[in-house]
Amino acid sequence: MSAAPIYDRVALIGLGLIASSMFWAMKRHGLAGEVTGFARSEATRATAREIGLCDRVCDSAAEAVEGADLVVLCVPVGAMGAVAAEIAPALKPGATVSDVGSVKKAVIESVGPHLPEGVHFVPAHPLAGTEHSGPTSGFAELFENRWSLIVPVEGSDREAVARVEALWQGMGALTDEMDAEHHDLVLAVTSHAPHLIAYTMVGVADDLRRVTDSEVIKYSAAGFRDFTRIAASDPTMWRDVFLTNKEATLEVLGRFTEELFALQRAIRTGDGDHLFDYFTRTRAIRRGIIEAGQDTDAPDFGRVKKG
Amino acid sequence: MSAAPIYDRVALIGLGLIASSMFWAMKRHGLAGEVTGFARSEATRATAREIGLCDRVCDSAAEAVEGADLVVLCVPVGAMGAVAAEIAPALKPGATVSDVGSVKKAVIESVGPHLPEGVHFVPAHPLAGTEHSGPTSGFAELFENRWSLIVPVEGSDREAVARVEALWQGMGALTDEMDAEHHDLVLAVTSHAPHLIAYTMVGVADDLRRVTDSEVIKYSAAGFRDFTRIAASDPTMWRDVFLTNKEATLEVLGRFTEELFALQRAIRTGDGDHLFDYFTRTRAIRRGIIEAGQDTDAPDFGRVKKG
Repeated sequence: MSAAPIYDRVALIGLGLIASSMFWAMKRHGLAGEVTGFARSEATRATAREIGLCDRVCDSAAEAVEGADLVVLCVPVGAMGAVAAEIAPALKPGATVSDVGSVKKAVIESVGPHLPEGVHFVPAHPLAGTEHSGPTSGFAELFENRWSLIVPVEGSDREAVARVEALWQGMGALTDEMDAEHHDLVLAVTSHAPHLIAYTMVGVADDLRRVTDSEVIKYSAAGFRDFTRIAASDPTMWRDVFLTNKEATLEVLGRFTEELFALQRAIRTGDGDHLFDYFTRTRAIRRGIIEAGQDTDAPDFGRVKKG
Repeated sequence: MSAAPIYDRVALIGLGLIASSMFWAMKRHGLAGEVTGFARSEATRATAREIGLCDRVCDSAAEAVEGADLVVLCVPVGAMGAVAAEIAPALKPGATVSDVGSVKKAVIESVGPHLPEGVHFVPAHPLAGTEHSGPTSGFAELFENRWSLIVPVEGSDREAVARVEALWQGMGALTDEMDAEHHDLVLAVTSHAPHLIAYTMVGVADDLRRVTDSEVIKYSAAGFRDFTRIAASDPTMWRDVFLTNKEATLEVLGRFTEELFALQRAIRTGDGDHLFDYFTRTRAIRRGIIEAGQDTDAPDFGRVKKG
């Protein structure tokens, strides 16, 4: 436990991977006093109570946010607006509302209008996740050394922004500020388009009749295994990401297919130089990522040693 | 050391990741007597001598294969034919020639015709790799619990096939037999197409002017980091893979773009059900891969703990 908690009362709305990881991280580092939680599904609330996820699990979102200094919306992006409408009357004056959605413009547009005067809105997005979802999937280390982007809205209170930032840093994250439009484009490139592509490739493998699923599974080399891991992410969350970050995702996918067609053409025409030059260039980005400390250079290719 | 070595003399032609891993694995498990090696580049041969890679590093491929019971071609697929022509006159009668190329039809077509009567040809393909290449990148555990596909040609001597299979098993690999055409299609799905897609996405990220490379690098979430790892693989090797497994790769890419367009359309028209159903289906394949023991379900998302 560190000195004083950053917030006396925190409410987590939605109890999936991110919220449960936040709970364990906040508790480990003494960042919050009482943490309340709410999930729409009764089964999720029951599981949360069983595993001690949240100091108090409430049966309504309004009850959970009552008296909270910080409310974090951890529901799929498409559900944020409705949840905001539901909790708005119960919010404490001076409270801060934040979220963890992967898309920021759509969240700001759907949540912002519901929030009463005197409540601060500080959207955020932790760039951390696993292929697992649900209340039992969280762990305190999820955010360590990962970036958490803080996306203040026009007129966001600087003190409120600084506290949200301090909370993420307290959970081990690196933080940065960015505007919503730029955030959505950056994420379309580094996360949303790659996810759609991985989903697509895994679907194609499943469809191809002349190669059995069992062959795909047995002989999935490193590349494809990474794709399947990405493509196993939560379907609801990702549906909402694509529907709400439509423009930026479609722009990046447009560029992607254009490039892919050029490479396909190089294969068809046997243009080895084009392929070689392209593949050489992409190596440099990888080196940059390793140098930036965002991944390791371990010789085992990130393979996790089995028990 | 186990009882008797499987081969008294093994020659490795080409001294990159696969050959160097084979050397360390064969030595650790006592599978080979003397192992000779040859690499076209003088610098690679010098490095190999320095680090003790191979019992004897030779200055020509012909010298390396002299008297060898097993010769393994570990050069890029596009170079296999020329190497086969070069070593053919020096091969010992009764020797076995194998290879580790990622494409099998093209290798069989380019190597087979050069081999003299009385020399056995047993193509193989270990499904193992890392993003690293070169003589210093190998390690003895690379093949452990990974599949190695043995692709006998018409009239392959069964005893010669069994010995190659035993060698791979001795290095810790699981083995299976497959015909060349089917191998090339399976690999197009599980490896070649995913690699091209990853290369493309990383190239697009680099091209997009409104997002800086530094942003891409800092904020690369899990999905994109996996892509960059794939896209950092050896450019020469992959150029040759695409040029020599052209048909199957283009077929799979055709299916891929068809599916991608359907998903793009679902995004554009806001068809959430289509997206949700697709993403739900792809989760099942991932579960199959975990159940088949080809990857782990570790909650840290395969993240390697840093020193």
